[in-house]
Amino acid sequence: MSSFSTDPADLDPNDPAGEVTLRAEAYRNWGRWGEDDVLGTLNFIDSAKRTQAARLVTEGITVSLGQEFNEDGPQKGWKKRNNPVHTMTGTGLDAERSLDAFPHGIGGADDLIMMPLQCSTQWDGLGHIFDRGYAWNGRRAGDVVTTQGDGVTGIEKAASVIVSRGVLLDMGRHLRPETGELEDGYAITEEDLDSCIAAQGASSAVGRGDILLVRTGQLARVRREGWGDYAGGPAPGLSITTARWLYRSEIAAIATDTWGFEVRPNEFHESFQPLHQIVIPNMGLTVGEMWDLERIGQACAERGRFDFLLSAQPLPITGAVGSPINPIATL
Amino acid sequence: MSSFSTDPADLDPNDPAGEVTLRAEAYRNWGRWGEDDVLGTLNFIDSAKRTQAARLVTEGITVSLGQEFNEDGPQKGWKKRNNPVHTMTGTGLDAERSLDAFPHGIGGADDLIMMPLQCSTQWDGLGHIFDRGYAWNGRRAGDVVTTQGDGVTGIEKAASVIVSRGVLLDMGRHLRPETGELEDGYAITEEDLDSCIAAQGASSAVGRGDILLVRTGQLARVRREGWGDYAGGPAPGLSITTARWLYRSEIAAIATDTWGFEVRPNEFHESFQPLHQIVIPNMGLTVGEMWDLERIGQACAERGRFDFLLSAQPLPITGAVGSPINPIATL
Amino acid sequence: MSSFSTDPADLDPNDPAGEVTLRAEAYRNWGRWGEDDVLGTLNFIDSAKRTQAARLVTEGITVSLGQEFNEDGPQKGWKKRNNPVHTMTGTGLDAERSLDAFPHGIGGADDLIMMPLQCSTQWDGLGHIFDRGYAWNGRRAGDVVTTQGDGVTGIEKAASVIVSRGVLLDMGRHLRPETGELEDGYAITEEDLDSCIAAQGASSAVGRGDILLVRTGQLARVRREGWGDYAGGPAPGLSITTARWLYRSEIAAIATDTWGFEVRPNEFHESFQPLHQIVIPNMGLTVGEMWDLERIGQACAERGRFDFLLSAQPLPITGAVGSPINPIATL
Amino acid sequence: MSSFSTDPADLDPNDPAGEVTLRAEAYRNWGRWGEDDVLGTLNFIDSAKRTQAARLVTEGITVSLGQEFNEDGPQKGWKKRNNPVHTMTGTGLDAERSLDAFPHGIGGADDLIMMPLQCSTQWDGLGHIFDRGYAWNGRRAGDVVTTQGDGVTGIEKAASVIVSRGVLLDMGRHLRPETGELEDGYAITEEDLDSCIAAQGASSAVGRGDILLVRTGQLARVRREGWGDYAGGPAPGLSITTARWLYRSEIAAIATDTWGFEVRPNEFHESFQPLHQIVIPNMGLTVGEMWDLERIGQACAERGRFDFLLSAQPLPITGAVGSPINPIATL
Repeated sequence: MSSFSTDPADLDPNDPAGEVTLRAEAYRNWGRWGEDDVLGTLNFIDSAKRTQAARLVTEGITVSLGQEFNEDGPQKGWKKRNNPVHTMTGTGLDAERSLDAFPHGIGGADDLIMMPLQCSTQWDGLGHIFDRGYAWNGRRAGDVVTTQGDGVTGIEKAASVIVSRGVLLDMGRHLRPETGELEDGYAITEEDLDSCIAAQGASSAVGRGDILLVRTGQLARVRREGWGDYAGGPAPGLSITTARWLYRSEIAAIATDTWGFEVRPNEFHESFQPLHQIVIPNMGLTVGEMWDLERIGQACAERGRFDFLLSAQPLPITGAVGSPINPIATL
Repeated sequence: MSSFSTDPADLDPNDPAGEVTLRAEAYRNWGRWGEDDVLGTLNFIDSAKRTQAARLVTEGITVSLGQEFNEDGPQKGWKKRNNPVHTMTGTGLDAERSLDAFPHGIGGADDLIMMPLQCSTQWDGLGHIFDRGYAWNGRRAGDVVTTQGDGVTGIEKAASVIVSRGVLLDMGRHLRPETGELEDGYAITEEDLDSCIAAQGASSAVGRGDILLVRTGQLARVRREGWGDYAGGPAPGLSITTARWLYRSEIAAIATDTWGFEVRPNEFHESFQPLHQIVIPNMGLTVGEMWDLERIGQACAERGRFDFLLSAQPLPITGAVGSPINPIATL
Repeated sequence: MSSFSTDPADLDPNDPAGEVTLRAEAYRNWGRWGEDDVLGTLNFIDSAKRTQAARLVTEGITVSLGQEFNEDGPQKGWKKRNNPVHTMTGTGLDAERSLDAFPHGIGGADDLIMMPLQCSTQWDGLGHIFDRGYAWNGRRAGDVVTTQGDGVTGIEKAASVIVSRGVLLDMGRHLRPETGELEDGYAITEEDLDSCIAAQGASSAVGRGDILLVRTGQLARVRREGWGDYAGGPAPGLSITTARWLYRSEIAAIATDTWGFEVRPNEFHESFQPLHQIVIPNMGLTVGEMWDLERIGQACAERGRFDFLLSAQPLPITGAVGSPINPIATL
Repeated sequence: MSSFSTDPADLDPNDPAGEVTLRAEAYRNWGRWGEDDVLGTLNFIDSAKRTQAARLVTEGITVSLGQEFNEDGPQKGWKKRNNPVHTMTGTGLDAERSLDAFPHGIGGADDLIMMPLQCSTQWDGLGHIFDRGYAWNGRRAGDVVTTQGDGVTGIEKAASVIVSRGVLLDMGRHLRPETGELEDGYAITEEDLDSCIAAQGASSAVGRGDILLVRTGQLARVRREGWGDYAGGPAPGLSITTARWLYRSEIAAIATDTWGFEVRPNEFHESFQPLHQIVIPNMGLTVGEMWDLERIGQACAERGRFDFLLSAQPLPITGAVGSPINPIATL
C-alpha cells in the first residue's frame, strides 16, 4: 500500500475524491485498537512516553499555547461560529453599590460564557469529521453524532489522556529564517518535515505517542496585520501528501497555529479540507487548531531544544466534538 | 498577630463580621507581591517547585480531577447558574442525509456551549469575591470587575501559572475510615489537617507553592444519592478557623470536592461564605471547587502516596472571574 | 370517517398507537391547502375574520396573555429547556462610573438572552412534532427539520398571520365555579367545550379562523403554590377525544395556560402527548402553551363577553420550531 | 423655552454637549406622569386612541414590520452584539432515526436562541440610554440598571401597552421619488417631516399617542448591496433638531428602518447618538430600530393611506432594556 506519490506536484487537482480515497484506505486504522475504540491514535500515548515526557522538565518553566478567549477573536459567524461572548452576572460595581446585599460585607462577581467549541485554541474530537457518512472506526456518522452530541467518541472520553511529549517543528523559522513565517498557501511536505527535524536536531525527533506541533508563523502575521480571513481563508499548512508521514510517525495528535491545520486553498480545484477527511475519521488522529505557538517557538529557538512535557487535556464536555483548551508546555 | 483561637468552639456565632475582620486583617497579603500584583498566592509557585513536581512522575499515569460538563449537573439556577447547555450545530445525521453538501464526501459536526463559569469543576479567580467593596490587593471592587469583566485580575492572567505539586489530604478516608465520607456540616479544623498529614505520611507534607486538594467524600455521596442540594446546601468543608493554617502553609491554591470549599452551614447564625471573604480578596488565595477527587483518592490510597504533578491551568477567558477546568494529576 | 367514540371512557388505555392512528387518519389535513403549504389551519384566518375581530375593539383596552420571561420560570432542564438567562453587557452602574466613556455624557445599557424557544408563553410551530417520522403535510421529518432548523415550516412563515378573533373558553370558571381551577389530570371533553360555550353565551361561539383559548386555571394554582411540576407534570387539559371537535370547528390555533395543552397524565398507560401527535403533524394545528389567561379570564368574566381581537404574532426566528410570544388581547 | 433654532445649519458642530443640554432641558418630561412613572411617552396612548386605531382596520390585511432573526444579520460584535444564534436540540433527522424513542411514534424538535436584545428589529427600553448618569424620570442610572437588569423601567412594564395607531412617514419616497431611498448621512428635519405629512395627506397626520414610523429606505439599499456598515455606520436619520417636533407632537413612540434612528455620522465633530440622549432619558420616548418598513411602505403607497392599527408589543423579558419584536400593522 501507499505506493503513490508524496510529491504535491503529482496530485490530480481535478480528482480530490480519488486522491482522498487512496490515502483514506491506505492509512485507515479502523479496528487497530478494537471495535469499541474511542481514542484512535491517542492510544499511542503510554505510561513510558509520559514518564519520558516528565523527565524533559528541567527548568520548571511553563508556557501557555492557548490564545485568549474573548470577543475579539477571528470568527465571523460561519457555521454559527461566533467569537466567545462572556457576560457578567455580578460585578464589583454592584458589590460596591449594595454592600449589605450579603451578610458581613461579602460580595461577589459571577460570569458565564457562550462559545462555539471550535472558536479558538481547541482540539477537534474524533466525531468532528466524517468520510462519506462514516466516522472514526467505521461507524455510521448518524450512529455517533446526533443532536444529543457524540454519544460514542465525545471529547470527555479523552479527558485524562492527552499528556505526553510535545515536539515543536518550527516550519516558519526553518523554511523562512528571515521572517519566521510561511506564506499563505504554502503546502508543507514530507520533505519539509524531515528537513526541519534534521536542522533542529535530536530533540525534535518525532515518534510514537508524541504530540506534534507545527508552527507556521501565520498567527504572528495576523496579529500584526489583523485577523483578516484567518478563520477559513488562505493559510500555510500540511499538504494532503503528508498523510503517509503522519501515519508512519505514529504520533498521537497534531496541532498548528492556523485555523485549519492543512494548507488553504486546498490542493484541488474544488475541495474542502481533504486531509481532515483522511486523518480524523480514517486514521483516528486528534487534530488541534489555532494554537498559539509564538511563545513556545521563541523559547525553543533560544534553547535549541524542541521537546517538552505537554499537558493539553480537553474540558470533558459530555458528547462534545471538540473542546477549547489551554495547552501548557513545561520545560 | 493571629493570637486568636483556632478552635471553632471559640467562635462567636453572632459576630461573623468581627470574626471575619480579625482574620482578614491578620492574613492579608496586600502589597506582598507589589501593588500591581494579579496572582496572589499563585506567586508561591516557582520553577524549583515545578521541577520537583515533575520528578514525582514515576508511573506515567494520569488521573482527571474534573467532573464532566453536561446538563445533568448540580446547578439549579441560583445567580443564573444553570448547568451547561451543549448544543450541536451539525451532526452525523445531517452528514449522512446530505453526503454531497461538501466536496468529495467530507462531512462535519460542530457544537457550542453556554455555561456559567462556576457551574462545575472550576477555579475561582481573584475577582470572584470582595470584602466590603474591596478586591484582591486592596483595589476597589468596581475598579476591578465591571460588566466588561475583570480588567485587572482576570483568569487569563494565570493562564500559564497553575502547574505545581499537588497534595491530596483525604479527610474523608482519614476521619471516617469506614465510609470515606465526612458528613454534611462537618467543619475541618487545623488539627484535622495536621493529623491527616501525620497519618498519610511524608508524601503529604504541605508547603510553599503546593496546591492543596482536600477530599471530603461528599461527591461520592451525592453521586450515590442524587445531587440534592450539592450546589449551596449543607456540606463538609474547612472551618473559618483554618485561615491561619492556610496562610502559614503558603500554599498556592486549594481545592475541594464540594460546591463551596468551606463548611456549610457556615459557622455563624447569619453568614455567607466567610472563609471566602478572608482568603480570596485578602489572602489572594485561588480556590477550586467541585473537583472530582474520587479517582485520585483511590489512586493515592492504593499507593500510600499523596503527591503528584498537577496541571490545573484555566481556560484563558479574558476578564473572567473563574474558569471551568479539567485538572490532571500525573503520577 | 370519525365514527369512533368521543367519550374518554371508551379509549383503550393499552392501545395509544391505535387510538392515535384512528384520529390522525380521520382528521388529517394533508394536501388541503396544496402540497407546498406551510401554515396548516392558520389558513383559516382570512381578511373577513380579521376585520370582524377588529370590530370587537370597543373599549380600547389591552391585556397581555404572556408570562414574563425570566430565571424564575417553570423549567427544570428537561430536553435542555432551562429558564431564560438574561444578562447585561452594560449597566447604569458602569455608566455612572465612567461618565466620559462616550462623548457628551451619553451612557447606555445593553443585554442579551439565552432561551429555549419553548420555555414559557409560546407557539409550537408545525415542525415541532412528528408522527412516526412524518411532519405536517406528509413530509419526511428529516426533510423538514435538520440542525439548520426547520427549512420548510419555520415559524417565520407565520410572521404576519396570527392576528384574528380570539375566544376564551374559561373551563376553570365554568366547571369549577367555586375555585375557578380544574384539578390536575382532568380531561376536558367535547361535551365540556360545548357546555362552556352554551353557558358563556353568544360571544364565545367558536368557528372557522378563530383562535381558541382554553383557561384551566392551573397557572393560578402554581403561582399560589409554586411551580412544582408545571413543566411536564400532571395538569388539566384536552382529552385526545376532542380531536374531532378541534377538527370540525376549523379553528386556526389553540392555546392553554398549561405546559402541554393536553391532559396529563395522558390517557393511556404508556404514552406521551398523543393529542399533539394528532393535531400538529396531521391536522396542521398551531398550538400555544403556557399562556397567562388569568387577566383575560378576569376581564371576560367581568364583562360577560369572551371574544376580542388577538394579536399573537411570533418572533420571526428563521427556521424555528417555536417562538416565545406576548399575545395581546384588545377589547 | 425651545427658542433655539431647528435648522441643522445653525448647530455648533464643536459643541455637542451644549446642544444636547439645551434640548434635554427643553424637552424633559421628568415628573410629567408622576415620580414613579415607568412608561414615559407611552402614557400618551389611551383607550380612545386604541379604539380609533382599531377602526382603521378595513381590509383585514396584516403586514409584518419585523426583520427575520437569524445568523445572517447586520451585527458584527460591537458591544457583544452578535447576530442571533439559533440551535436545535432535536430535529426531524433524530426523530426519523429513533422512531421508538418516545411512545407510539411521536417525535419532536426543539430549539433555543442566544441573542442580544438589540440585534435586529427591536424597541429600546427606557433604561437603554442615560444622560450624564441619569435615567428616565431623573433617577440615577445605577439605581435603575444593574447586572440584575433594569429593576425600574424594564421592558416588561410595557408588556400590554404598545398597541396604537401607527403612522408611516415615507421620507424615502417623499424626498427621493425616483429611488425611494434617502442617502446615508441625510439629516431629516422638522421641515421634511411636515412636508411629508402635507404631501401624503390626511391619513398621515401625527398626534398624541401615535406611533410614528419613519421609512428612510436604507434597509432596501443594504438588502440590495449587502449589510456593509448598517450596524453603526453612516445612515439617513433624524436630525437632533427634530427633538422639538418629537416633543410637541406627543407621539408615544418612534421607529425607523435604520440601526440607530438618528442621522449618522452624527451632526457634531465628536459625538455619539446625541438625539438618543435627549429623547430616551429626558423625554421618555420609546425608540424602535431596524424595523422592516419595506412592505408597509409599498402597501401604503398603493393605497395612498398611511395609518393603521399597529401591534408592537415587546416580549416581557423581566428587567430587559430592550426587546426583539415583530410589529404587525393591520389595515
